[in-house]
Amino acid sequence: MADCLFCSIVAGEVPAFKVVDSPDGVGFLDIRPVFKGHVLVVPRPHVPQLVDLSPDLLPGFFALVQRVAAAVPAATEAKGTFVAMNNIVSQSVPHLHAHVVPRTKGDGLRGFFWPRHKYASDEEAASYASSIASALG
Amino acid sequence: MADCLFCSIVAGEVPAFKVVDSPDGVGFLDIRPVFKGHVLVVPRPHVPQLVDLSPDLLPGFFALVQRVAAAVPAATEAKGTFVAMNNIVSQSVPHLHAHVVPRTKGDGLRGFFWPRHKYASDEEAASYASSIASALG
Repeated sequence: MADCLFCSIVAGEVPAFKVVDSPDGVGFLDIRPVFKGHVLVVPRPHVPQLVDLSPDLLPGFFALVQRVAAAVPAATEAKGTFVAMNNIVSQSVPHLHAHVVPRTKGDGLRGFFWPRHKYASDEEAASYASSIASALG
Repeated sequence: MADCLFCSIVAGEVPAFKVVDSPDGVGFLDIRPVFKGHVLVVPRPHVPQLVDLSPDLLPGFFALVQRVAAAVPAATEAKGTFVAMNNIVSQSVPHLHAHVVPRTKGDGLRGFFWPRHKYASDEEAASYASSIASALG
Protein backbone atom coordinates (compact mmCIF):
# COMPACT_ATOMS: atom_id res chain seq x y z
CA MET A 1 0.00 0.00 0.00
CA ALA A 2 1.26 3.51 -0.80
CA ASP A 3 2.57 5.45 2.19
CA CYS A 4 2.86 2.33 4.37
CA LEU A 5 6.28 2.23 6.01
CA PHE A 6 6.27 -1.55 6.39
CA CYS A 7 5.17 -2.13 2.78
CA SER A 8 8.13 0.06 1.79
CA ILE A 9 10.49 -1.99 3.96
CA VAL A 10 9.14 -5.24 2.45
CA ALA A 11 9.68 -3.77 -1.03
CA GLY A 12 13.22 -2.73 -0.14
CA GLU A 13 12.42 0.94 -0.75
CA VAL A 14 13.15 1.94 2.84
CA PRO A 15 16.24 0.56 4.57
CA ALA A 16 15.93 -1.66 7.61
CA PHE A 17 18.14 -4.03 9.56
CA LYS A 18 16.55 -7.18 8.16
CA VAL A 19 17.04 -10.50 9.90
CA VAL A 20 14.92 -12.58 7.51
CA ASP A 21 13.27 -11.98 4.14
CA SER A 22 11.11 -14.90 3.08
CA PRO A 23 7.90 -15.64 1.16
CA ASP A 24 6.12 -15.85 4.54
CA GLY A 25 7.16 -12.37 5.67
CA VAL A 26 10.00 -10.09 6.61
CA GLY A 27 11.69 -9.67 9.99
CA PHE A 28 13.72 -6.57 10.85
CA LEU A 29 14.97 -4.74 13.92
CA ASP A 30 12.66 -2.31 15.68
CA ILE A 31 14.83 0.80 15.72
CA ARG A 32 13.39 1.79 19.12
CA PRO A 33 13.81 -1.56 20.86
CA VAL A 34 12.31 -2.46 24.21
CA PHE A 35 15.51 -4.47 24.49
CA LYS A 36 18.25 -4.78 21.89
CA GLY A 37 17.49 -7.57 19.44
CA HIS A 38 13.76 -6.67 19.39
CA VAL A 39 12.45 -7.79 15.99
CA LEU A 40 9.27 -6.95 14.09
CA VAL A 41 7.82 -9.64 11.82
CA VAL A 42 5.42 -8.51 9.09
CA PRO A 43 3.47 -10.29 6.35
CA ARG A 44 4.53 -9.26 2.82
CA PRO A 45 1.07 -8.04 1.69
CA HIS A 46 -0.54 -5.07 3.39
CA VAL A 47 -2.58 -6.68 6.19
CA PRO A 48 -3.87 -4.03 8.61
CA GLN A 49 -4.25 -6.10 11.77
CA LEU A 50 -4.37 -9.64 13.15
CA VAL A 51 -8.01 -10.30 12.34
CA ASP A 52 -7.33 -9.35 8.69
CA LEU A 53 -4.67 -12.03 8.18
CA SER A 54 -6.16 -14.49 5.67
CA PRO A 55 -6.13 -18.27 6.19
CA ASP A 56 -3.65 -18.71 3.34
CA LEU A 57 -1.14 -16.37 4.98
CA LEU A 58 -1.66 -17.28 8.65
CA PRO A 59 0.28 -20.56 8.96
CA GLY A 60 3.39 -19.24 7.19
CA PHE A 61 3.33 -15.96 9.07
CA PHE A 62 3.15 -17.54 12.52
CA ALA A 63 5.66 -20.22 11.60
CA LEU A 64 8.02 -17.34 10.78
CA VAL A 65 7.23 -15.69 14.11
CA GLN A 66 8.08 -19.01 15.78
CA ARG A 67 11.43 -19.14 13.96
CA VAL A 68 12.28 -15.60 15.05
CA ALA A 69 11.18 -16.40 18.62
CA ALA A 70 13.67 -19.27 18.62
CA ALA A 71 16.44 -17.25 17.00
CA VAL A 72 16.32 -14.17 19.23
CA PRO A 73 17.29 -15.98 22.46
CA ALA A 74 19.82 -18.07 20.50
CA ALA A 75 21.49 -14.88 19.25
CA THR A 76 21.31 -12.75 22.40
CA GLU A 77 21.62 -13.07 26.17
CA ALA A 78 17.84 -13.57 26.40
CA LYS A 79 16.27 -16.52 28.18
CA GLY A 80 12.81 -16.06 26.68
CA THR A 81 10.69 -13.81 24.52
CA PHE A 82 7.66 -11.61 24.61
CA VAL A 83 5.63 -11.90 21.39
CA ALA A 84 2.94 -9.26 20.93
CA MET A 85 0.71 -7.52 18.45
CA ASN A 86 -1.10 -4.24 19.01
CA ASN A 87 -4.32 -4.04 17.04
CA ILE A 88 -5.67 -0.55 16.34
CA VAL A 89 -4.93 0.97 19.77
CA SER A 90 -1.17 1.62 20.23
CA GLN A 91 -0.57 0.27 16.73
CA SER A 92 1.91 2.80 15.37
CA VAL A 93 1.97 1.42 11.82
CA PRO A 94 -1.30 0.03 10.39
CA HIS A 95 0.39 -3.03 8.88
CA LEU A 96 0.26 -6.12 11.09
CA HIS A 97 3.53 -6.63 12.95
CA ALA A 98 4.45 -9.13 15.63
CA HIS A 99 6.97 -7.80 18.13
CA VAL A 100 9.48 -10.41 19.27
CA VAL A 101 11.18 -8.93 22.32
CA PRO A 102 14.10 -10.65 24.07
CA ARG A 103 13.44 -11.15 27.78
CA THR A 104 15.64 -12.07 30.70
CA LYS A 105 14.77 -12.57 34.34
CA GLY A 106 15.25 -9.38 36.28
CA ASP A 107 15.10 -7.19 33.18
CA GLY A 108 12.73 -4.94 35.07
CA LEU A 109 9.82 -5.29 32.70
CA ARG A 110 7.42 -7.37 34.69
CA GLY A 111 6.30 -5.06 37.45
CA PHE A 112 4.81 -2.40 35.23
CA PHE A 113 4.21 -4.61 32.28
CA TRP A 114 1.08 -6.30 33.45
CA PRO A 115 -0.87 -4.02 35.77
CA ARG A 116 -3.71 -6.20 36.98
CA HIS A 117 -7.21 -5.59 38.21
CA LYS A 118 -10.00 -7.68 39.67
CA TYR A 119 -13.59 -8.43 38.78
CA ALA A 120 -15.93 -7.00 41.40
CA SER A 121 -17.71 -10.37 41.66
CA ASP A 122 -18.13 -13.72 39.98
CA GLU A 123 -21.34 -12.37 38.50
CA GLU A 124 -19.45 -9.56 36.79
CA ALA A 125 -16.89 -12.02 35.40
CA ALA A 126 -19.66 -14.33 34.19
CA SER A 127 -21.31 -11.41 32.45
CA TYR A 128 -18.13 -10.55 30.56
CA ALA A 129 -17.61 -14.19 29.61
CA SER A 130 -21.16 -14.46 28.37
CA SER A 131 -20.90 -11.30 26.23
CA ILE A 132 -17.67 -12.46 24.62
CA ALA A 133 -19.05 -15.98 24.05
CA SER A 134 -22.06 -14.44 22.33
CA ALA A 135 -19.82 -12.29 20.12
CA LEU A 136 -17.94 -15.46 19.14
CA GLY A 137 -21.20 -16.79 17.75
CA MET B 1 0.03 -32.80 31.79
CA ALA B 2 -0.43 -33.49 35.50
CA ASP B 3 -0.29 -30.41 37.72
CA CYS B 4 -0.79 -28.01 34.80
CA LEU B 5 -3.52 -25.49 35.63
CA PHE B 6 -4.42 -24.88 32.00
CA CYS B 7 -4.58 -28.61 31.16
CA SER B 8 -6.98 -28.90 34.11
CA ILE B 9 -9.12 -26.05 32.77
CA VAL B 10 -9.16 -27.64 29.30
CA ALA B 11 -10.23 -30.94 30.88
CA GLY B 12 -12.96 -29.20 32.86
CA GLU B 13 -11.41 -30.25 36.17
CA VAL B 14 -10.81 -26.67 37.30
CA PRO B 15 -13.55 -24.09 36.84
CA ALA B 16 -13.03 -21.09 34.58
CA PHE B 17 -15.16 -18.46 32.90
CA LYS B 18 -14.93 -20.01 29.45
CA VAL B 19 -15.80 -18.00 26.37
CA VAL B 20 -15.07 -20.71 23.80
CA ASP B 21 -14.32 -24.42 23.94
CA SER B 22 -13.41 -25.83 20.54
CA PRO B 23 -11.18 -28.49 18.96
CA ASP B 24 -8.66 -25.70 18.25
CA GLY B 25 -8.37 -24.57 21.85
CA VAL B 26 -10.11 -23.08 24.84
CA GLY B 27 -10.64 -19.40 25.69
CA PHE B 28 -11.42 -18.23 29.22
CA LEU B 29 -11.20 -15.07 31.30
CA ASP B 30 -7.93 -14.18 32.97
CA ILE B 31 -9.08 -13.76 36.56
CA ARG B 32 -6.53 -10.97 37.08
CA PRO B 33 -7.35 -8.94 33.98
CA VAL B 34 -5.27 -6.07 32.66
CA PHE B 35 -8.70 -4.79 31.62
CA LYS B 36 -12.03 -6.54 32.10
CA GLY B 37 -12.77 -8.90 29.23
CA HIS B 38 -9.10 -10.02 29.07
CA VAL B 39 -9.14 -13.56 27.64
CA LEU B 40 -6.52 -16.30 27.58
CA VAL B 41 -6.53 -18.68 24.62
CA VAL B 42 -4.76 -22.03 25.07
CA PRO B 43 -4.21 -25.07 22.84
CA ARG B 44 -5.88 -28.25 24.14
CA PRO B 45 -2.68 -30.34 24.37
CA HIS B 46 0.09 -29.35 26.75
CA VAL B 47 2.30 -27.12 24.61
CA PRO B 48 4.88 -25.32 26.78
CA GLN B 49 5.55 -22.22 24.67
CA LEU B 50 5.09 -20.70 21.22
CA VAL B 51 8.04 -22.41 19.58
CA ASP B 52 6.67 -25.79 20.71
CA LEU B 53 3.33 -25.39 18.87
CA SER B 54 3.36 -28.03 16.12
CA PRO B 55 2.46 -27.24 12.49
CA ASP B 56 -0.75 -29.29 12.78
CA LEU B 57 -1.98 -27.19 15.73
CA LEU B 58 -0.71 -23.76 14.66
CA PRO B 59 -3.30 -22.72 12.06
CA GLY B 60 -6.30 -23.65 14.20
CA PHE B 61 -4.85 -22.09 17.32
CA PHE B 62 -4.13 -18.72 15.73
CA ALA B 63 -7.45 -18.75 13.85
CA LEU B 64 -9.08 -19.10 17.28
CA VAL B 65 -6.96 -16.23 18.62
CA GLN B 66 -8.18 -14.16 15.66
CA ARG B 67 -11.80 -15.00 16.47
CA VAL B 68 -11.34 -13.97 20.10
CA ALA B 69 -9.53 -10.78 19.00
CA ALA B 70 -12.62 -9.91 16.93
CA ALA B 71 -15.10 -10.87 19.66
CA VAL B 72 -13.52 -8.97 22.57
CA PRO B 73 -14.00 -5.47 21.06
CA ALA B 74 -17.43 -6.52 19.78
CA ALA B 75 -18.47 -7.49 23.31
CA THR B 76 -16.84 -4.66 25.28
CA GLU B 77 -16.15 -0.94 25.02
CA ALA B 78 -12.75 -1.71 23.49
CA LYS B 79 -11.58 -0.21 20.20
CA GLY B 80 -8.69 -2.61 19.72
CA THR B 81 -6.76 -5.43 21.31
CA PHE B 82 -3.34 -6.31 22.56
CA VAL B 83 -2.44 -9.92 21.76
CA ALA B 84 0.61 -11.28 23.54
CA MET B 85 2.45 -14.38 24.60
CA ASN B 86 5.17 -14.57 27.24
CA ASN B 87 7.64 -17.34 26.56
CA ILE B 88 9.63 -18.63 29.56
CA VAL B 89 10.32 -15.23 31.18
CA SER B 90 7.16 -13.81 32.87
CA GLN B 91 5.25 -16.93 31.74
CA SER B 92 3.27 -17.73 34.88
CA VAL B 93 1.85 -21.04 33.61
CA PRO B 94 4.11 -23.20 31.40
CA HIS B 95 1.30 -23.98 28.92
CA LEU B 96 1.19 -21.67 25.89
CA HIS B 97 -1.43 -18.96 26.30
CA ALA B 98 -2.22 -15.97 24.14
CA HIS B 99 -3.48 -12.98 26.10
CA VAL B 100 -6.19 -11.04 24.28
CA VAL B 101 -6.50 -7.74 26.15
CA PRO B 102 -9.16 -5.16 25.29
CA ARG B 103 -7.66 -1.73 24.59
CA THR B 104 -9.12 1.73 24.29
CA LYS B 105 -7.43 5.03 23.53
CA GLY B 106 -6.46 6.80 26.72
CA ASP B 107 -6.60 3.62 28.81
CA GLY B 108 -3.27 4.65 30.29
CA LEU B 109 -1.36 1.60 29.16
CA ARG B 110 0.85 3.00 26.47
CA GLY B 111 3.30 5.19 28.31
CA PHE B 112 4.75 2.51 30.51
CA PHE B 113 3.89 -0.38 28.29
CA TRP B 114 6.64 0.01 25.77
CA PRO B 115 9.70 1.55 27.38
CA ARG B 116 12.07 2.10 24.47
CA HIS B 117 15.79 2.30 24.06
CA LYS B 118 18.20 3.11 21.26
CA TYR B 119 21.05 1.34 19.56
CA ALA B 120 24.32 3.13 20.25
CA SER B 121 25.13 3.14 16.53
CA ASP B 122 24.12 1.65 13.19
CA GLU B 123 27.03 -0.73 13.62
CA GLU B 124 25.58 -2.05 16.86
CA ALA B 125 22.17 -2.54 15.23
CA ALA B 126 23.76 -4.28 12.25
CA SER B 127 25.61 -6.58 14.61
CA TYR B 128 22.37 -7.62 16.36
CA ALA B 129 20.64 -8.13 13.02
CA SER B 130 23.50 -10.26 11.76
CA SER B 131 23.53 -12.46 14.88
CA ILE B 132 19.78 -13.07 14.69
CA ALA B 133 19.93 -13.73 10.94
CA SER B 134 22.65 -16.31 11.59
CA ALA B 135 20.56 -17.97 14.28
CA LEU B 136 17.69 -18.19 11.79
CA GLY B 137 19.97 -20.27 9.59
